[in-house]
Amino acid sequence: MKLGKFYGVGVGPGDAELLTLKAKRILSSANVICAPRSGEDKRSLALSIVRKVVRKKFRVLQPYFPMVKDRAVLEKHWEQAADEIFAELKKGRSAAFVTIGDPLFYSTYSHVLKKIKARGARTETVPGVTSLSSCLAALQLPLLEGEERLAVIPASYGLEALESTAKNFDAIVLMKVSRNYDKIVERLGKLGLKDKAIFLSRCGTKKFFSAKLDEMLGREIDYFSMIIIKR
Amino acid sequence: MKLGKFYGVGVGPGDAELLTLKAKRILSSANVICAPRSGEDKRSLALSIVRKVVRKKFRVLQPYFPMVKDRAVLEKHWEQAADEIFAELKKGRSAAFVTIGDPLFYSTYSHVLKKIKARGARTETVPGVTSLSSCLAALQLPLLEGEERLAVIPASYGLEALESTAKNFDAIVLMKVSRNYDKIVERLGKLGLKDKAIFLSRCGTKKFFSAKLDEMLGREIDYFSMIIIKR
Repeated sequence: MKLGKFYGVGVGPGDAELLTLKAKRILSSANVICAPRSGEDKRSLALSIVRKVVRKKFRVLQPYFPMVKDRAVLEKHWEQAADEIFAELKKGRSAAFVTIGDPLFYSTYSHVLKKIKARGARTETVPGVTSLSSCLAALQLPLLEGEERLAVIPASYGLEALESTAKNFDAIVLMKVSRNYDKIVERLGKLGLKDKAIFLSRCGTKKFFSAKLDEMLGREIDYFSMIIIKR
Repeated sequence: MKLGKFYGVGVGPGDAELLTLKAKRILSSANVICAPRSGEDKRSLALSIVRKVVRKKFRVLQPYFPMVKDRAVLEKHWEQAADEIFAELKKGRSAAFVTIGDPLFYSTYSHVLKKIKARGARTETVPGVTSLSSCLAALQLPLLEGEERLAVIPASYGLEALESTAKNFDAIVLMKVSRNYDKIVERLGKLGLKDKAIFLSRCGTKKFFSAKLDEMLGREIDYFSMIIIKR
């Protein structure tokens, strides 16, 4: 039997209307939808978007990818997911791996893609609207104009380098700010950047809101949050 | 009469299928489509995408924005476009300003938006798939994983700072490489980055292609080109 094709599909930031026409077409024709979970009982936002747009039955795979840093543990889960998906492809079924935002920006998809390619299947990636674009649209904030420069930094790593980055870039996007939010705000305060920054949560979903950095101190910060600094 | 609403709509990188469902809905209901031109006789790629997706008649405005750096000249053209658009809104018509990629990344839209807001109209921005996302998808190249850092730099400005940027970032995207392409490649060679770089042209369109940097030396480089460096 001919191997089914494997797709990676960005479903956009959360609003089902921000799916592309191509994503809708491919999801509508795929036999299997693969929507990873990060917790044993967590529901998948990406899968709920697919359910809003695709009006037919499909098979669902929900591999579990734990939120850990141990590469060996992660490798085992990626391998397992690739095995499950490939078993479907071997039956001649097409499978679409869905990711929030774009599949090639900070997504587990790339690891699974590599393993599916290694097994010899045809693959295609469909880009999506990022949560950054959707935040900017909600605020109607132009991020970059003319010759301006942008830095995108996961905050857990980039804090030491923030001072030099602030000097050399016109706009900075701090990702993954939920874990050490208060420390980040303190650092931005010392660098005189607090007034030029804005906190954004759950971009592209109905729960979206923005706030001044200080308003969020001591509060629980959602994983889908970021800070945008525009000098 | 009630003022019409003004929309900024990202139509994606060039493939009409990469329009979002929301963009299609809004473009289909808008009375006026505003598609700027950068040359007196140049056809608008964004407008041709709209024509593929919207199956009804609409009024077209095609303001001319010259490719110059003189801020006073640009201001005059933005003001003129805002006047033309506002005249339509005053007739109760809705107008959608279309941009390739995302409206808030390096687009003239932001200037016109400001002027329309100042005139008191309601406005809404619809995000789009960027040409960067579409290039990555075409190459199936994961740009960022885990804690990695990204810099986006217009090459005409950022060349001096390239060495320190290369040290501090895992991925670098050089935009606007058409004007001084050979100089950029020479600089990347000196920094030992040439083998980690790839040239991309007309991402998201049928004319898309990628090449090694050296293959493009001495050739005419399209404006919609970029270089991606992944360390």
